[in-house]
Amino acid sequence: MEKANLFSNIPNALPEEIFENLLEHKHFKLERIVSCGQSTPPGDWYDQDKNEWIILLKGCAGLLFEDEPHLIEMHSGDYIHIPAHKKHRVEWTDEKQTTVWLALHYK
Amino acid sequence: MEKANLFSNIPNALPEEIFENLLEHKHFKLERIVSCGQSTPPGDWYDQDKNEWIILLKGCAGLLFEDEPHLIEMHSGDYIHIPAHKKHRVEWTDEKQTTVWLALHYK
Repeated sequence: MEKANLFSNIPNALPEEIFENLLEHKHFKLERIVSCGQSTPPGDWYDQDKNEWIILLKGCAGLLFEDEPHLIEMHSGDYIHIPAHKKHRVEWTDEKQTTVWLALHYK
Repeated sequence: MEKANLFSNIPNALPEEIFENLLEHKHFKLERIVSCGQSTPPGDWYDQDKNEWIILLKGCAGLLFEDEPHLIEMHSGDYIHIPAHKKHRVEWTDEKQTTVWLALHYK
């Protein structure tokens, strides 16, 4: 049996976010997301056709939901459930260190 | 939207491991496991009818697979995929701090 580490294999420079499938299944997808300062482009919203359970495990980030006034600040261990078509955006991610997320997408 | 934290709501004393469903779905179950010094009873093996993807996020532990001679030491961020009916046991978990796992069970 081989183990791997969620915080390994992260490049020093991250010009773009990295999306990497850890597990793909007919009914769900488990994904690692690595960010460093990236955010959703101004005016854009994620509008996903799948539900998403997401946990931030390193770094920090700010999430905004279209129908809510306040930003949700995510720190290590924070998780949130985003129903399909709940419009949201990543306002900011930590610029000083990598931010590592684990996301479970499912219908 | 409400966030929660994987490392919160852990009792000071843990006479037994805590198994807590974070997400239940027809095709999978996402579970938090909190241990503190517990291990699988001597001679016992887990023989699960579901596949399990498991990540250790706090503390440390030793996993043993029946058909492999060496213990796999798990530290923060380490994850492993355990196919259904792959017999395994938790030889030890950290006694000095809580060990927090996130497990995804699926068929």
